[in-house]
Amino acid sequence: MPEPLQDLAHIGHAELLTPKPNESLGFFEQVLGMEVEARDGQSVFLRGWGDYQRYSLKLTESERAGLGHMALRAWSPEALERRVQAIEAAGLGQGWIDGDVGHGPAYRFTDPDGHAFELYFETEKYRPPEHLRPSLKNQPQRYVGRGAAVKRLDHVNVLALDVRANRAFAEDVLGFRLYERIELDDGTEAGAWMSLTIAAHELIYVKDALGHKGRLHHLAFWVDTREEVLRAADLFLDNDIEIEAAPSKHAIAQGFFLYGFEPGGNRIEVTHGGYFVYDPDPEPTVWTEAERAKGQAWGVKTVESFHTYGT
Amino acid sequence: MPEPLQDLAHIGHAELLTPKPNESLGFFEQVLGMEVEARDGQSVFLRGWGDYQRYSLKLTESERAGLGHMALRAWSPEALERRVQAIEAAGLGQGWIDGDVGHGPAYRFTDPDGHAFELYFETEKYRPPEHLRPSLKNQPQRYVGRGAAVKRLDHVNVLALDVRANRAFAEDVLGFRLYERIELDDGTEAGAWMSLTIAAHELIYVKDALGHKGRLHHLAFWVDTREEVLRAADLFLDNDIEIEAAPSKHAIAQGFFLYGFEPGGNRIEVTHGGYFVYDPDPEPTVWTEAERAKGQAWGVKTVESFHTYGT
Amino acid sequence: MPEPLQDLAHIGHAELLTPKPNESLGFFEQVLGMEVEARDGQSVFLRGWGDYQRYSLKLTESERAGLGHMALRAWSPEALERRVQAIEAAGLGQGWIDGDVGHGPAYRFTDPDGHAFELYFETEKYRPPEHLRPSLKNQPQRYVGRGAAVKRLDHVNVLALDVRANRAFAEDVLGFRLYERIELDDGTEAGAWMSLTIAAHELIYVKDALGHKGRLHHLAFWVDTREEVLRAADLFLDNDIEIEAAPSKHAIAQGFFLYGFEPGGNRIEVTHGGYFVYDPDPEPTVWTEAERAKGQAWGVKTVESFHTYGT
Amino acid sequence: MPEPLQDLAHIGHAELLTPKPNESLGFFEQVLGMEVEARDGQSVFLRGWGDYQRYSLKLTESERAGLGHMALRAWSPEALERRVQAIEAAGLGQGWIDGDVGHGPAYRFTDPDGHAFELYFETEKYRPPEHLRPSLKNQPQRYVGRGAAVKRLDHVNVLALDVRANRAFAEDVLGFRLYERIELDDGTEAGAWMSLTIAAHELIYVKDALGHKGRLHHLAFWVDTREEVLRAADLFLDNDIEIEAAPSKHAIAQGFFLYGFEPGGNRIEVTHGGYFVYDPDPEPTVWTEAERAKGQAWGVKTVESFHTYGT
Repeated sequence: MPEPLQDLAHIGHAELLTPKPNESLGFFEQVLGMEVEARDGQSVFLRGWGDYQRYSLKLTESERAGLGHMALRAWSPEALERRVQAIEAAGLGQGWIDGDVGHGPAYRFTDPDGHAFELYFETEKYRPPEHLRPSLKNQPQRYVGRGAAVKRLDHVNVLALDVRANRAFAEDVLGFRLYERIELDDGTEAGAWMSLTIAAHELIYVKDALGHKGRLHHLAFWVDTREEVLRAADLFLDNDIEIEAAPSKHAIAQGFFLYGFEPGGNRIEVTHGGYFVYDPDPEPTVWTEAERAKGQAWGVKTVESFHTYGT
Repeated sequence: MPEPLQDLAHIGHAELLTPKPNESLGFFEQVLGMEVEARDGQSVFLRGWGDYQRYSLKLTESERAGLGHMALRAWSPEALERRVQAIEAAGLGQGWIDGDVGHGPAYRFTDPDGHAFELYFETEKYRPPEHLRPSLKNQPQRYVGRGAAVKRLDHVNVLALDVRANRAFAEDVLGFRLYERIELDDGTEAGAWMSLTIAAHELIYVKDALGHKGRLHHLAFWVDTREEVLRAADLFLDNDIEIEAAPSKHAIAQGFFLYGFEPGGNRIEVTHGGYFVYDPDPEPTVWTEAERAKGQAWGVKTVESFHTYGT
Repeated sequence: MPEPLQDLAHIGHAELLTPKPNESLGFFEQVLGMEVEARDGQSVFLRGWGDYQRYSLKLTESERAGLGHMALRAWSPEALERRVQAIEAAGLGQGWIDGDVGHGPAYRFTDPDGHAFELYFETEKYRPPEHLRPSLKNQPQRYVGRGAAVKRLDHVNVLALDVRANRAFAEDVLGFRLYERIELDDGTEAGAWMSLTIAAHELIYVKDALGHKGRLHHLAFWVDTREEVLRAADLFLDNDIEIEAAPSKHAIAQGFFLYGFEPGGNRIEVTHGGYFVYDPDPEPTVWTEAERAKGQAWGVKTVESFHTYGT
Repeated sequence: MPEPLQDLAHIGHAELLTPKPNESLGFFEQVLGMEVEARDGQSVFLRGWGDYQRYSLKLTESERAGLGHMALRAWSPEALERRVQAIEAAGLGQGWIDGDVGHGPAYRFTDPDGHAFELYFETEKYRPPEHLRPSLKNQPQRYVGRGAAVKRLDHVNVLALDVRANRAFAEDVLGFRLYERIELDDGTEAGAWMSLTIAAHELIYVKDALGHKGRLHHLAFWVDTREEVLRAADLFLDNDIEIEAAPSKHAIAQGFFLYGFEPGGNRIEVTHGGYFVYDPDPEPTVWTEAERAKGQAWGVKTVESFHTYGT
C-alpha cells in the first residue's frame, strides 16, 4: 500500500468569469455578503469573513460565464515542487507565472478535461483594515453579517467528459482523496467527490451530460449553520435571485444545500454540513444508478437543469 | 368564574428615550436591522420587517434614557371605549390625544407605578415602498437581513415599586392574563409575566430593587430562531455593543435571550422561543425565592446589574 | 363592524382512525416521540411533552384511515353555551355526550362537509407521573427527547367539497379568524387558513380534488425549531417512514414543514414557524391560481399526491 | 522550514475510568445516546452514530475517575513505525501490546505529564447489525436519535503540570499542529490547542491548577448543530445531569459547548462548531492573561470548578 500523498493543502481560490460584472459583483457583495479586497484590471477579488488569505474569489469580466481557473495551495515549497514534477510528467503542465494579487509564483496546468488550475505556496495572510478588525483574535475578519454572510469558498464542482480520467489525475497526480463516486450500470463513472482534507468534498467531477469540455457546475460557499442556508434562501427570494434548488440535504456527502444563479449565469451554492473523513484509508462509497434515482437524502428530486446546465 | 376580558389585542409600539439619539439610531438601524419609517420632531419611528403597523419603536431624544410610553391596541372601537371607562373608574386616566404618526386617537393613562400608557384602535397598516416590497404577499416587508434583522417588538419589561398593585391593574383593568410570577418568602410579589395572547409574555413587571418608580427594565425584539439570537451575539460583539447577558434560556417563560445595552443606555433583548398558552384558564406558575436562586434554565446565574439597572 | 367572536380557545385534540393500530402506535410513540397517557377500548390517548391537557391525539382502530373527530375547547362555560346555541341555529348540531377520557361533557356537531367536531370546556390538566416530572415547573412534562419529540398538536387540515361554505361556518359560527385563502380564477375558493389565536393557522380547509366529503388532509405536530424538523426528516428516513414532502417552507402561512405517512395511511406533518397575527382586524391574504403555481416559498413544487391524497 | 509531519490521522478512541460503571453507562447510552458495541471484562465499548470504527469510547470500571488512555491512529503502517521510533528516541516509549477489541497491535507510551497513549494502524471498520443499518450508505450507522445522539468523539482535553513540554512533545514527536495557546504574563504556557487535521482542536493541554499530574479535564463529543447542543442542555436538565457550564461559545477555537459531569465524576462536553484551519502554515493565536480574563466569546465567565476540577 503506497503511503498517502499529502502535498496539497486546499483550494485557495477560484476565478469566476462573468459577462455581467457589475451585477455579479452586486450579488457577491450584497447578497452573499463578501468583502471586496482588491481590484485589478477587469477583476475584483472578494473574500468571506473566514478566509485566512486575502480572497477566495476572483471575479473577472468575460464574454462568457464559467470558471477562469482554480488555484491549489501546497503544504510547503518542497511539496509544490514535487507536484509540479508530477504534473509535468503527466504531460499537462503549462509553466510558471509570476503570481497574482495576494500570492506568489504559480504553476499553471490543466486537468485532462481542460479546466485551468494553478499551484502555489507563497501567499499573503489577510490583514484587516480598521473597520474590519475582529473582536476575537483567532478570526481573520470582523463578522459584518451582511446578506448571507458566507464564511469562505468551500468547494468547486466541475463537469467533465470523462470523469474517470480526471478523477484518476486528481487522485494520482494531485493527491486528492476519493470519498464518494457514482458508477452507472454500464460502468461509466458519472461523478467523483474528492478532498484534500477531512472535509467531505473540495473538488467534484460530474459527467457533462451535454458532452462539452471544461465547464463549471458550481462554486460553493460555506456558512456555519443549516439555519444560515435557510436564511440565505429568504435572501435569494427577496433579492430576486433565481433559486434552482431550495434548501435540502444531499445524499452524496450529506451536505445541506441551496442553489441559485448569480446574475452572470453561474450556479452558486450556499452550503453547510456533511461529514468528516477522519479515516486515513476509507473505502469510497459507490452509488449505483438505481440509488441515485431515489433523489436527495430526503427524497427531493433534482430539477432537470441541475443535470445539464453548466458554464 | 368571570369570563376572560379580551378587549386589548397587543402592545402596538413602545417609545424609548435616549440621550444619544444618533448613536441609538445607529444601533437600531444597523445592528438590530430595523427600518426608519418616519421622523417627526425629535423622534424617529422604526420597524421590524414583520411589523404589520408602520412601526413598533418610537425613538425620542431626551435628557435621560427610559421608557416614553407604550401603546396598546384594542380589539375594536367598542373594546377601546370599554377599557377607557374602566381606567377612568380606576382613577388613572389622563385623557385623549389626537394620535401620533401612524395611529388615530389615543387615550393616555399611567399604571399605578407611573409608567405612561396609551390605548388606541385606529391604525395605519404598513404599505412598503418599492425597495422594501416583499416576495411573499403575506409578509409586510421585504426581508433585508441587515444586522440582527429583528422581526418586531415582542415584549416590554418594566420595574415597579409594588408589583402586586401593578399586576392587578394590568389583569383587572387592562385584561392581561397572568402566566407566571415570583413570590418571595415574605410574601412580596417580585415579578409578574403577563400576556394578551397565547405568547408567553408581552408585559412584565419586576420589583425595582432600588426603590425607584417608573423605570424601564428592557424592550425585547423578536427573531424567528434561536440561531438568530446566537448570531446577534456575534454582531453585538463585533459592533462593540456591550453584552450584559450572553445567549441562554430563561427558566421563567423559557424564552431564549441575549441582553445588551444600546448606546443611549437602555437594556435591549433579542428574544426567541418560550411556549404558547393555549389554555384559557391556566393556573399561573409561581416561583419561590429558592427556585429563583438556581439561576436560569440551564443554571446560568444572572449578573448583578440585571437585578438593579433600569432606565 | 361586529366585534370579534372569541368564544373558542383552541383545538384540544384530534381523533385519528387507523386500520393498523399497532404500527400507528409505534410511529406516534417511537418516531414522533409521544407518550401514551391512557387506553380505552380500541383507542390509545397520546400526548406531546408540551400538552397542558392529558392528550392531544386519540388514536382509534378502525377499518379505514381518517379523522374520527376534532374537539375544540371553549373559553368558558358561558362561551361554550353560546357556541352550542349558534351551532344548533345553524342546523348542524347533534347533541351532548358525557365526555371522554380527560374531558367533561361535549357537544357533537359536524361542519357542512360532514367532519365530526366536539366542543367542551371542562378538562383535566395533565399531572405527570414521577418518571415524567419536569425540572422546570412551567413545563407540563419532562422533555424525554425520544424520536422527533413533538411538543403538541398544532393544526388540523381537512378536505372539503365546498371550502367557502365550511370556511364561512368556521368563521361565523365557531369564531375562527381567516388569515389566508386561495381563490381560483373562476372564483372557486380552494383553501382557507384559519385560527382561534395569533398562531397563523389551527384549522385549514382545502378543496377536495377528488370530490369526496369528510376527508382528512393531515394532522400537524409542533416542534420548537426548524432544526428539529430537519432532524425529524432524518428520523423518518432511518425508520422507513415514507416522506411525501421533504422539509421546506410553505408560501401560505410560511410554516416550515415535513410531510410523511404514518403506517395507517394518514398524512402527518411535523411543523414549526409561521408568523403571529397580532392584528385584530387583519385583511386576509388572498392567493391567486398563478401565485400558487409558483410552488412553495422557495419554489419547491408540491408533489401530485399532496393535492389528491386524503383519508 | 521543515515539512509538516503527517504521520498520525486522528484520535481513534479514549478510555474513560469510572467508579460507577452502571450509572456512567446509563449516561453514555441513554443521555448521550451512544450504542454499546462490545463488552470485555470490566469495560464497555461505545460508539456514536458517525464513528467509522467500532467504537470511540472505552468505559472501564476503576477505583477512581479519569483517563485510561487515548489511542491515535496512524496514516499507514510506515507512518506508525516512524512515530514509534521517534517516541522511543524521546525516551517515553513503553512497548507494543497485541491490540484490543476492534484494533490491532498498538504501541504504548506516555506524554511527559504521564498520560497514557497508544498508537495503532490496523482497525476494524464498523459493520452495523440489521437494526442499526443506515438508509444512506455513506453513513456508518442508522441515526437512532436517542438522547443527545452524539455523532463521535471529537477531542480530548488533559491537564498538565508543564504545558510547554507536553505541547512540544505533541508537536515535534507526534506531529500535532498548534493552532492556539495561552501565555501568561510571566511567560508560563497555560494552554495549547492542537490538531492533526483542519479541525480546530483534537488534543488540548491546559495547566493543572492544583499541580497534579496525569489528570483529565474532559472528553468532548460532537453533534452536527448548535441546536443539538442546546437540546442536549434540556436533556441534561431533565435527566438530573449536573450542568457545569451552560451552552455558549468559546473564545479559544470558537467551539460551541455544553459541559456537565457524568455520574462517575468525569467532565463531558457536547460540542459543535469552531473553525477549520486550511492554512498549512498558520501562525498560532496567542492569548494573553488579560484577554483570557474577558471570559468566553460573548463574555461568559467560566465557573471556578472549570479551572480546578480534573479526574
